Amino acid sequence: MSNARNLSAALRRARVPRPRIHLRPALPYTPLTTAVRSFSVSSTVWADKQIKYTSDAYPNVKRDPNFGELTAKDVAYFKELLGSESAVIDGVTADATDDIEPFNSDWMRKYRGHTKLVLKPGSTEEVSKVLKYCNEKKLAVVPQGGNTGLVGGSVPVFDEIVINTSRMNKIRSFDTASGVLVADAGVILEVADQYLAKRDHLFPLDLGAKGSCHIGGNVSTNAGGLRLLRYGSLHGTVLGLEAVLPDGTIVNSLSTLRKNNTGYDLKQLFIGSEGTIGLVTAVSIICPPRPKAVNVAYFGLESFEQVQQAYLQAKGQLSEILSAFELMDGRSQGLVKESTGNKYPLEGEYPFYCLIETSGSNAEHDMAKLETFLENVMGEGIVADGVLAQDETQFQALWRWREGITEALSHLGGTYKYDVSIPLSDLYLLVEDCKARLTEMGFVGDDESFPVRAVVGYGHMGDSNLHLNVSVRQYNKEVEKAIEPWVYEWIQKRQGSISAEHGLGIAKRDFIGYSQNDTMVKLMKQLKGLYDPNGIMNPYKCI
Amino acid sequence: MSNARNLSAALRRARVPRPRIHLRPALPYTPLTTAVRSFSVSSTVWADKQIKYTSDAYPNVKRDPNFGELTAKDVAYFKELLGSESAVIDGVTADATDDIEPFNSDWMRKYRGHTKLVLKPGSTEEVSKVLKYCNEKKLAVVPQGGNTGLVGGSVPVFDEIVINTSRMNKIRSFDTASGVLVADAGVILEVADQYLAKRDHLFPLDLGAKGSCHIGGNVSTNAGGLRLLRYGSLHGTVLGLEAVLPDGTIVNSLSTLRKNNTGYDLKQLFIGSEGTIGLVTAVSIICPPRPKAVNVAYFGLESFEQVQQAYLQAKGQLSEILSAFELMDGRSQGLVKESTGNKYPLEGEYPFYCLIETSGSNAEHDMAKLETFLENVMGEGIVADGVLAQDETQFQALWRWREGITEALSHLGGTYKYDVSIPLSDLYLLVEDCKARLTEMGFVGDDESFPVRAVVGYGHMGDSNLHLNVSVRQYNKEVEKAIEPWVYEWIQKRQGSISAEHGLGIAKRDFIGYSQNDTMVKLMKQLKGLYDPNGIMNPYKCI
Repeated sequence: MSNARNLSAALRRARVPRPRIHLRPALPYTPLTTAVRSFSVSSTVWADKQIKYTSDAYPNVKRDPNFGELTAKDVAYFKELLGSESAVIDGVTADATDDIEPFNSDWMRKYRGHTKLVLKPGSTEEVSKVLKYCNEKKLAVVPQGGNTGLVGGSVPVFDEIVINTSRMNKIRSFDTASGVLVADAGVILEVADQYLAKRDHLFPLDLGAKGSCHIGGNVSTNAGGLRLLRYGSLHGTVLGLEAVLPDGTIVNSLSTLRKNNTGYDLKQLFIGSEGTIGLVTAVSIICPPRPKAVNVAYFGLESFEQVQQAYLQAKGQLSEILSAFELMDGRSQGLVKESTGNKYPLEGEYPFYCLIETSGSNAEHDMAKLETFLENVMGEGIVADGVLAQDETQFQALWRWREGITEALSHLGGTYKYDVSIPLSDLYLLVEDCKARLTEMGFVGDDESFPVRAVVGYGHMGDSNLHLNVSVRQYNKEVEKAIEPWVYEWIQKRQGSISAEHGLGIAKRDFIGYSQNDTMVKLMKQLKGLYDPNGIMNPYKCI
Repeated sequence: MSNARNLSAALRRARVPRPRIHLRPALPYTPLTTAVRSFSVSSTVWADKQIKYTSDAYPNVKRDPNFGELTAKDVAYFKELLGSESAVIDGVTADATDDIEPFNSDWMRKYRGHTKLVLKPGSTEEVSKVLKYCNEKKLAVVPQGGNTGLVGGSVPVFDEIVINTSRMNKIRSFDTASGVLVADAGVILEVADQYLAKRDHLFPLDLGAKGSCHIGGNVSTNAGGLRLLRYGSLHGTVLGLEAVLPDGTIVNSLSTLRKNNTGYDLKQLFIGSEGTIGLVTAVSIICPPRPKAVNVAYFGLESFEQVQQAYLQAKGQLSEILSAFELMDGRSQGLVKESTGNKYPLEGEYPFYCLIETSGSNAEHDMAKLETFLENVMGEGIVADGVLAQDETQFQALWRWREGITEALSHLGGTYKYDVSIPLSDLYLLVEDCKARLTEMGFVGDDESFPVRAVVGYGHMGDSNLHLNVSVRQYNKEVEKAIEPWVYEWIQKRQGSISAEHGLGIAKRDFIGYSQNDTMVKLMKQLKGLYDPNGIMNPYKCI
């Protein structure tokens, strides 16, 4: 990475008033993944509160009476089939409440099911036999990876059997020439990326939960994340899949070829269908060479208009080396400060912050491009202040101001999370409008008596993807009603998406109509019926 | 682009024996698209030969007796519906053989149908009404764009009605901030790209037929082309589609959002299904900023092993600016020389040639990276000789040595074309094995009495995608039998694809089993039955 001299020289050349580029001393290094993993073991008061059952929170959702009820005989069958002691957590014939709880509820402590059985098959064949049995007995199931989802998609609502992929965690192959990785669904994203790092390659997906999430879950939810801007969506990078249909059919479409136009690209249906038509057991994905040089800059800006200008300049000038352009509002950064106790990266406070990452093959070239970009945005007054990471520690520290938002919020209480796509010009307006609405309705305040603590916005500016988060002192139906469906109507008016990257799960299932027309919903239901006629796959979710 | 000094200085710095980098005088500029368009009006003797009917060439394919027969009443309905004089070419109630012929046969002069009716709807609503009518009367149809396909997918076999998209040719919208283009299916690829060029963006797909092919056809066949290496497949770049199902249902999934995880990604099913489940009427696609600097280098190499080494070096060193790595064998370049009468770009002749293109945002940086790469590959003796385009004219001229292969072959007679994916290390072995086999069987020779003139190989090295072309003096069943299914068995053994980017059409329909297992084929047929129960959409093709 650069040193102080480089940047100063570039700025002198630009003959503009020298902006306040801070070169902070190295910050203590906190691995991002430790922070992520701590989501589920939050030590605040909030963590001690009982999680409400989803069946109580959604009283309109009723258990499908056609589903079978688990018996001791079923459990005996699964124990026999899966063999290993660790493969079955049996709450049917024994008391296993504590062991089962982490599989029944999500890390946000928002969704909680009633399952009494968790299965951890060790192979695709075992998944096939489990599903075939369940389909015949009409036993509903929930596929579950790292259980890091945000819409209640990976936990049961009633007594659905959890099929967890954590024991299917082998990397099957990697070819350096083509960059194609083939791995089991249960491989943790960060493990896959570390494996690739040793071979000079990069997993083309990165997100805050990387230390826990499974790549099978990433594919099943079509995870987007931080670097979609650069490496594109999983619909483009996933070359092949292995999945099991509800009737036990193993769909082996695990091609490692970049081009294969022999018939319909059926694997695409499993990408983003949230485990409702089949369970993904393995993934083949093309991975780019690992960048040799990575830089991160963190800016303070005075208005959202200037954020947009900075983005367009970055797109034009950083072009092929731009690997992330993240937006954080002032409130979100304030929460990270409160949560971590760290000092701000910049001296002053600003209503908006951006994190810009470049990744390339030549450090000198990348730094030169970044300097030109900085000269322009600072010289033209688009950016008010900025800091450039000087080493790996600062790099991690700056990223933590972005990735730490979710954690900071999780320490404060509950969060109503809206993950939306909106045309760029209106991206932040949603946060302002939502805050104004909730304030006007008397919900927002610093005092403990107000249900809403903060309305914050951040997200993947480069993908027009905003995370609107309403931080509440407790989950509150009145607040929820004030936000929904108002927020969805607001998005629909702008032809946005009510779920950019998190999926529908149970949280947004009933709101699909705001982003998909009747014909599309009908066609989706038709496909659901085709592949899962008994409806046992992740019921009450997605479609 | 660079000048001579840059390159020499870099090579001096490297202290390696100076390789023979030729700086040719500017070559006459021949727009690529003119060449492409001339495919269908080839003036050689070959063009005068009668094209055999597909129904005669494939006697096992029988007309489905469930299909209706066109009547004057049907024609009257379509004339009334479509209004415009130019929208219907009627060979049912009148003699229109000459007008219909270009829609009945393909530019390779290999496939020829018996249609008597061509319809050119002007809107999605018209397509919907046409299909609804056809579905009710069980009249089979063939969707047709620019009719530039290579597997007989876009022409009828019997009397299927041709639905041509050429009158649906409007660009609907473009947003500079997001780079999202929305356009009718019948927009010619090059027209779309020129439109984008004026707005500093680039269509993320490029292929030899760009002057004629329609973007709807590109999407329907999942075209790959020259720059997939850089910009990824259409499964990743296409954000939305509008399509019409056989029953007339308009599937409006024309999202302009980069991220939209609201249910199943149904549009993916239309990408690459070759018009067999619906007709694509409009496309929404994300387009990257147009590169400010583009370079092309053309190399001669002594062995395929060295080609592989050069590719791995390019992947590592040119990394994010590499936009094409094309392979051409010596024979293919000899054919271009014979066909165009141009002098070779290099002094000597080599068994292998590569064309490498870089595209980036900073000419100086790109040239520096390219120089380092050249120093390495020439210094290490990987590349025997090379030339770097010095201006736009030379850039076009060098590309013509790659893109002119198809045209050169089309002037010589017929071509058996195999477009396959094979793991990189075995990529060229297929050409050698095929040539050895056909030679051994006595088919290959310079004399007019030998059916096979040449066995050539070229393709998209960066995608492991080889084009094996067997140039014949006339289409010959004996030769075909010697190649097929031998070639497919060869590919199957290596887990390759029998159709990397051209699709199945009628040419490869019966061979799908070599690249897809029984389960996949069964699932594809199930979907075909779901969306097109009467089987009217492009029958006898793909699935």
